[in-house]
Amino acid sequence: MTATASTDTSTATIARELIELCRAGRNEEAIGKLYSPEIVSVESSGSEEMPAEMHGIDAIRGKNEWWVQNNDVHSAKVTGPFIGDDQFAVKFEYDTTFKPTGERVVMTEMALYTVADGKIVHEHFFYNMPGA
Amino acid sequence: MTATASTDTSTATIARELIELCRAGRNEEAIGKLYSPEIVSVESSGSEEMPAEMHGIDAIRGKNEWWVQNNDVHSAKVTGPFIGDDQFAVKFEYDTTFKPTGERVVMTEMALYTVADGKIVHEHFFYNMPGA
Repeated sequence: MTATASTDTSTATIARELIELCRAGRNEEAIGKLYSPEIVSVESSGSEEMPAEMHGIDAIRGKNEWWVQNNDVHSAKVTGPFIGDDQFAVKFEYDTTFKPTGERVVMTEMALYTVADGKIVHEHFFYNMPGA
Repeated sequence: MTATASTDTSTATIARELIELCRAGRNEEAIGKLYSPEIVSVESSGSEEMPAEMHGIDAIRGKNEWWVQNNDVHSAKVTGPFIGDDQFAVKFEYDTTFKPTGERVVMTEMALYTVADGKIVHEHFFYNMPGA
């Protein structure tokens, strides 16, 4: 794996911008500013109405809106970034109540982002949920 | 979060050593060389005989031996490291057959390691298993 200095800088810069926006709860803005229109988003698991793999920025905006509408967030902690060549990782810890069931859960996940041409083109979430 | 240059170097150096040994299949050696005797290891989920959280290098050696004895590894891919201040992340992809059931599964996971005084003191695994 090789990387030029500019690739490194770009990955680190985008990573820090993403984290700053997520810490401020400005996830919608992060998508608009940092995501490629061709973004691919992969969850650990999926269902018929919420498939594990989604393509394109409109689908990802929809997923984000669904999540915001269906979860009461009691606290959120963002740790990182952890920087690679064209990828970086972030740890998220969410204490949320899932509105449809009223179930409160602390979810810890690692997200792995891939950067190309100065935009996030791929995100992959790895969960650590109680009972999962 | 602040870090001195020496902390950064130490984290990156240990991260690269761990990856090199894991790529060579020398996980047992990595534990002996890089892990603190007080290592804490956290899995996404656990059972009565294999708790999610284990403490101490002997328990971690035992877990590693159990895994090696119970899985046929068809291929392994190690991606990273992803470097933070006193933590680093690694992505593992294993194509394995679990010997007791004969079930073949491709498992993708992110591991987050914490370094203190030049040793790995904490590891946390985030899974992405089909059907999990």
